[in-house]
Amino acid sequence: MSDIKKVVLAYSGGLDTSVIVRWLQDQYQCEIVTFTADLGQGEEVEPARAKAQAMGIKDIFIEDLREEFVRDFVFPMFRANTIYEGEYLLGTSIARPLIAKRLVEIANETGADAISHGATGKGNDQVRFELGAYALKPGIKVIAPWREWDLTSRETLMAYAQQRDIPIDFAKAGKKSPYSMDANLLHISYEGGVLEDPWTECEESMWRWSVSPEKAPDVATYIDLTFENGDVVAIDGERLSPATVLTKLNQIGGANGIGRLDLVENRYVGMKSRGCYETPGGTILLKAHRAIESITLDREVAHLKDELMPRYASLIYNGYWWSPERLLLQGLIDESQVHVNGVVRLKLYKGNVIVVGRQSSNSLFDTRISTFEDDGGAYNQADAAGFIKLNALRMRIAANNGRALLK
Amino acid sequence: MSDIKKVVLAYSGGLDTSVIVRWLQDQYQCEIVTFTADLGQGEEVEPARAKAQAMGIKDIFIEDLREEFVRDFVFPMFRANTIYEGEYLLGTSIARPLIAKRLVEIANETGADAISHGATGKGNDQVRFELGAYALKPGIKVIAPWREWDLTSRETLMAYAQQRDIPIDFAKAGKKSPYSMDANLLHISYEGGVLEDPWTECEESMWRWSVSPEKAPDVATYIDLTFENGDVVAIDGERLSPATVLTKLNQIGGANGIGRLDLVENRYVGMKSRGCYETPGGTILLKAHRAIESITLDREVAHLKDELMPRYASLIYNGYWWSPERLLLQGLIDESQVHVNGVVRLKLYKGNVIVVGRQSSNSLFDTRISTFEDDGGAYNQADAAGFIKLNALRMRIAANNGRALLK
Amino acid sequence: MSDIKKVVLAYSGGLDTSVIVRWLQDQYQCEIVTFTADLGQGEEVEPARAKAQAMGIKDIFIEDLREEFVRDFVFPMFRANTIYEGEYLLGTSIARPLIAKRLVEIANETGADAISHGATGKGNDQVRFELGAYALKPGIKVIAPWREWDLTSRETLMAYAQQRDIPIDFAKAGKKSPYSMDANLLHISYEGGVLEDPWTECEESMWRWSVSPEKAPDVATYIDLTFENGDVVAIDGERLSPATVLTKLNQIGGANGIGRLDLVENRYVGMKSRGCYETPGGTILLKAHRAIESITLDREVAHLKDELMPRYASLIYNGYWWSPERLLLQGLIDESQVHVNGVVRLKLYKGNVIVVGRQSSNSLFDTRISTFEDDGGAYNQADAAGFIKLNALRMRIAANNGRALLK
Amino acid sequence: MSDIKKVVLAYSGGLDTSVIVRWLQDQYQCEIVTFTADLGQGEEVEPARAKAQAMGIKDIFIEDLREEFVRDFVFPMFRANTIYEGEYLLGTSIARPLIAKRLVEIANETGADAISHGATGKGNDQVRFELGAYALKPGIKVIAPWREWDLTSRETLMAYAQQRDIPIDFAKAGKKSPYSMDANLLHISYEGGVLEDPWTECEESMWRWSVSPEKAPDVATYIDLTFENGDVVAIDGERLSPATVLTKLNQIGGANGIGRLDLVENRYVGMKSRGCYETPGGTILLKAHRAIESITLDREVAHLKDELMPRYASLIYNGYWWSPERLLLQGLIDESQVHVNGVVRLKLYKGNVIVVGRQSSNSLFDTRISTFEDDGGAYNQADAAGFIKLNALRMRIAANNGRALLK
Repeated sequence: MSDIKKVVLAYSGGLDTSVIVRWLQDQYQCEIVTFTADLGQGEEVEPARAKAQAMGIKDIFIEDLREEFVRDFVFPMFRANTIYEGEYLLGTSIARPLIAKRLVEIANETGADAISHGATGKGNDQVRFELGAYALKPGIKVIAPWREWDLTSRETLMAYAQQRDIPIDFAKAGKKSPYSMDANLLHISYEGGVLEDPWTECEESMWRWSVSPEKAPDVATYIDLTFENGDVVAIDGERLSPATVLTKLNQIGGANGIGRLDLVENRYVGMKSRGCYETPGGTILLKAHRAIESITLDREVAHLKDELMPRYASLIYNGYWWSPERLLLQGLIDESQVHVNGVVRLKLYKGNVIVVGRQSSNSLFDTRISTFEDDGGAYNQADAAGFIKLNALRMRIAANNGRALLK
Repeated sequence: MSDIKKVVLAYSGGLDTSVIVRWLQDQYQCEIVTFTADLGQGEEVEPARAKAQAMGIKDIFIEDLREEFVRDFVFPMFRANTIYEGEYLLGTSIARPLIAKRLVEIANETGADAISHGATGKGNDQVRFELGAYALKPGIKVIAPWREWDLTSRETLMAYAQQRDIPIDFAKAGKKSPYSMDANLLHISYEGGVLEDPWTECEESMWRWSVSPEKAPDVATYIDLTFENGDVVAIDGERLSPATVLTKLNQIGGANGIGRLDLVENRYVGMKSRGCYETPGGTILLKAHRAIESITLDREVAHLKDELMPRYASLIYNGYWWSPERLLLQGLIDESQVHVNGVVRLKLYKGNVIVVGRQSSNSLFDTRISTFEDDGGAYNQADAAGFIKLNALRMRIAANNGRALLK
Repeated sequence: MSDIKKVVLAYSGGLDTSVIVRWLQDQYQCEIVTFTADLGQGEEVEPARAKAQAMGIKDIFIEDLREEFVRDFVFPMFRANTIYEGEYLLGTSIARPLIAKRLVEIANETGADAISHGATGKGNDQVRFELGAYALKPGIKVIAPWREWDLTSRETLMAYAQQRDIPIDFAKAGKKSPYSMDANLLHISYEGGVLEDPWTECEESMWRWSVSPEKAPDVATYIDLTFENGDVVAIDGERLSPATVLTKLNQIGGANGIGRLDLVENRYVGMKSRGCYETPGGTILLKAHRAIESITLDREVAHLKDELMPRYASLIYNGYWWSPERLLLQGLIDESQVHVNGVVRLKLYKGNVIVVGRQSSNSLFDTRISTFEDDGGAYNQADAAGFIKLNALRMRIAANNGRALLK
Repeated sequence: MSDIKKVVLAYSGGLDTSVIVRWLQDQYQCEIVTFTADLGQGEEVEPARAKAQAMGIKDIFIEDLREEFVRDFVFPMFRANTIYEGEYLLGTSIARPLIAKRLVEIANETGADAISHGATGKGNDQVRFELGAYALKPGIKVIAPWREWDLTSRETLMAYAQQRDIPIDFAKAGKKSPYSMDANLLHISYEGGVLEDPWTECEESMWRWSVSPEKAPDVATYIDLTFENGDVVAIDGERLSPATVLTKLNQIGGANGIGRLDLVENRYVGMKSRGCYETPGGTILLKAHRAIESITLDREVAHLKDELMPRYASLIYNGYWWSPERLLLQGLIDESQVHVNGVVRLKLYKGNVIVVGRQSSNSLFDTRISTFEDDGGAYNQADAAGFIKLNALRMRIAANNGRALLK
């Protein structure tokens, strides 16, 4: 252990990671570089600077990564209509590989030989940080204090903080949420507390980003989303950067009671856990993306994507963003989006995201063929007889062989 | 053609299939058996008897298949959380194999050598009827009048009807819906008319089974669904038959503005088509089933099901219910449900289906392990380090070999 | 029918396609362009010119496509270790899309509005030709004489030929093989005749490209194959073009009794059929490619490829080479090959292809880690305990919940 | 550690596991139960009794598990045509879950609270033993000495043995193979030594179960294998038990130079390793099973099995035999075999396994349909036109929309 010289810490500025700063100084006698990122979590990141300085940190990295986050992580993931276990939009999972990447890059820049983070030994985030780091810099060392120390309760943490002169925002620490929370531009999550009983309904007061459907406006909001290569590039015709798109969709969605989720998920480390999530913008994005794909994607391409999606979602959930297999799948997914262009019109109303229109110059929806009216010979109905006959042939042969499908 | 002696016709009693009766008599000079089923479409089936008799039919089968439909078709499908192309709950698709089965069984009973149906040559239903029939009775002949005749417009059909003394309910024919519709206990569907432009929002007046979210009550409805082996067996503690469960969920869901869907789908015959669907009960079922599975299914079993689901959905959509591969997948799915028991509490509000609680004596949710509080040693956080290290090994070796994941 | 002006025919110069020339002239009164390709079938293509001229054809295309065939079709397919139904190396399937492409290109060049081919209505080749043609030129018309005419026996064909002055090579026609055969640089196939009974062993005299293992040399042949990006670029250090590589491997393989196959396969049109194949070079290629991948591919990439392979093989077998889904999969496969470089040493002996060595500068085989000897700390065995513990966790929770895996 | 009272050890009677006995006595001061199984490894198991007794063991289990091994593990695995990474027949992998099961059952019987084994911390076998044990008995403790002790070289082991009075068979220890080996009725494996360089050809002297193709008889051997529900039940018409079938196929195969394999595989713990394998009987089984399936399985069932196989193989390789997902897949696989009955005739010659005939009363091979001769109307070739047209429709629409498949 003692051979670690310099460690880059993912530093939020909060109590836990401030304790980690001190603990690393105590335990490892090593130099510490702090890294604080604005991923759209909705809190100021600049205050982390003073706190870090107060503990003697010299190398302080504070960065606004919101555009990179949405452009290179959130949007690529949504191109696959990614959902984990039928429900979860992977809001936490997708932020971790970006942090892992920056930790490694800063380690390279500053000559650090280790990274550290504040994730516990029970969760998925440790896996996501560390798999990413090992994949990008195989010789990196990782210090995960929660797996090492004995500061396992809030009381011991607070005691340690006071004893070691760690600046605590007592006002904030006092009104500490009863939940374990994580936020970024894609979502905010809640775990722990009363949520640990899956039969208990979550309290209305828990939610922070959205009004309840009950409190949402009584009149629907309509928006038009413009897609290019599978990504939203404009809202109501106004061209916006990726992070701005998501920020705005969060506002509109949150105001209309959209994107709350309460679920039990399977963690990679082997246990089930209850999580509540608010993903207003993401919920809108997913629905709209499926709609624009519905008129622009070839059927078999769409089905291939649907069959690969659960695996792709698991890769992200499990922390394999930085893996060769995720990159290969991403290549296929991205290539599939070349014709996914057009406009989707949505109606947002009290928690509902309703598709009311889609149009595209790349549309494969061909009314001349599908029409119930006269198609002028565009489609020959007689072809269907042969189509059915040959598709049935193997089953007819089996039935003739005496194989019964009914018991 | 002239060698067909007796044909069993899927007969609704409506104009189209009444014309088919007469046309079959004219064209094939054969005896006709009519089969009319109550699948919960919400219209009386008994009137079909008099209409058939008026056209000289002697063998008339009128059957209430609602329980069989839900028990043996709808519920098995929902055990897989089945959705076609991310959206469609397969309401039409799942009714066809039951009709195909009864057509074949009635053909066997009455000594008929052919079946007939009123599906067009452009849609999926012809495929579903005929693949089922061929699979169950390989020597059966199929007459699909829409692929043969020249009565391709409503006017020619009406003219044929008048000319050949077919009893038309002019009142009904007059107020004919502008949409092509299909209904059964699982859903009602709308196609054609103004829907042929995917940019046009559907009219509120089109929907028949549900109120709009706007018109739904301002106070949420809570229900408890009890699951046994993956199927709902009770609502709010009251034990109900399968068809009664679905009927009641349709009422509750429809009253709360739940289950409307507007999408563009890919037909098996190769074109895209716009469909609007109301599936109130099914929408509730799907959400609740995922919730009960979330606490009772093993992670890898859940993921295996999720990966197989798109293929299973395509099989049903494409008409392969009666195929050996669907039966094999069904066996796996059914076997996976043995522990899917418990209760899910839902909040229904203006189009939203919100899971607020789930409990089960088969729950794999183990708070002692997942808790953020002291777990008394149930989980050893240090194990995670080794877990991550070995999962990262292959990627570290690759990186050491000079393979860069970042461009 | 009569509206077809000019048709491009895949013309071999043999009896069947010569009859087709005349029949097209008779039936369609249209101009005919013949296209004859050297794909390595081992017969002269130039003689087709005189035959075509003798029947009045003016536009005659005779092309050597061997390099394109191997470079753009065979090699890409082998990058996926493609096998259909566990056995078949797809020798016929992979040649069809190239022919389809050239038929379409020639149609574009010559202003033809139709294509024609000599494949029967029972086989896969009609599907492969026509799907390719429709995908590349959606308005093309297709004439498949075997599905239209009544010349269904050899006798009627011969009679028609004599009657309509078609030049027949009687010497050749007389010694006509009892098998239906197809050949190109990848393989030669045999169907029909005594093979129609799957219990009958094929006769030694049938095989044309390889000696039997019994007749092969008593001394093994060793060869080194050099791979770049998944393709063989050199044999025994000598750099060779794609077609030359395959030609040489066929010679070496055939001389060593390698590559015979006798199987029953499932056709896309719904029936089973017996086929015998000689694929000497391909059999060597497949084995060697797997060997070079075994040291250069990441594990999860290899497994992803293995899981996608059956679907990719079916796409090729069924005629979907020219489809968006095949192209997407190809992109993924090709991208996976960027590190598949190195040398494989093989021992060829009486039908056996034995890998005896593989080496690569991109090797991920890291002896320092896998060694049974002292690894100097490269791998920490204690990590395995945590790895196993967390992988077991979900199963332990289930067992604690009373779920028994043993009946 | 000291709280372990009694441990069941997988005991071979060799040096390594004898040292483990003593080491467990020394380190854990606990009672030891030895378990030695005859899985067909070809060595006497009875001598293990005296050795165990000599070290003071009282509870000694020595069992002949050959029939159970083949019936309940090997045969079920072969029903899926299981191959790991395109090559490996999983000979070691498939034996581990049976040993895990017996270790747990004996622990239950004898009231032991722990199990122990002699697998190292670098290999797959530790994972297979321990995942199985945890899944079957979640509270079991596992002692893996190779992950704990410092006896990491043969010298230290020998020294420990002498010092602690462990009976060593010096004759045997002297002629110790330079390879790490494992054997059971399905195969014998070789790792380590010169094999650690993947460019080095293995020595002829290494192989123990088979003659080289060169040394095999110059005359082929023909055998008929009879299948029932996917398993071989008779050889040349003689009904045999599962273990006897495999024993006999090993003899016949080994005598004909069949079943040698030299490959590099990806271990679950993250590294690549070279392994050489002799699987004479298994190689024959696999080929024959595919052949009987080729005439008896439905096409889509066969393809479903092929697509699931790599995942199923990985489950077994990685040690998840005792997992709910493997059991579900097994159920599907077993159900698929109900019609896999009949006889396969094989020609065995110098390393080659050649299928020369297959027949079955469940055959779906229907010559009347596939014949090149007149089929009497069993198949209507005109159906193919419609089949192709509708399968091409989506691609024609795309091409009409301007999407080009060729660059």
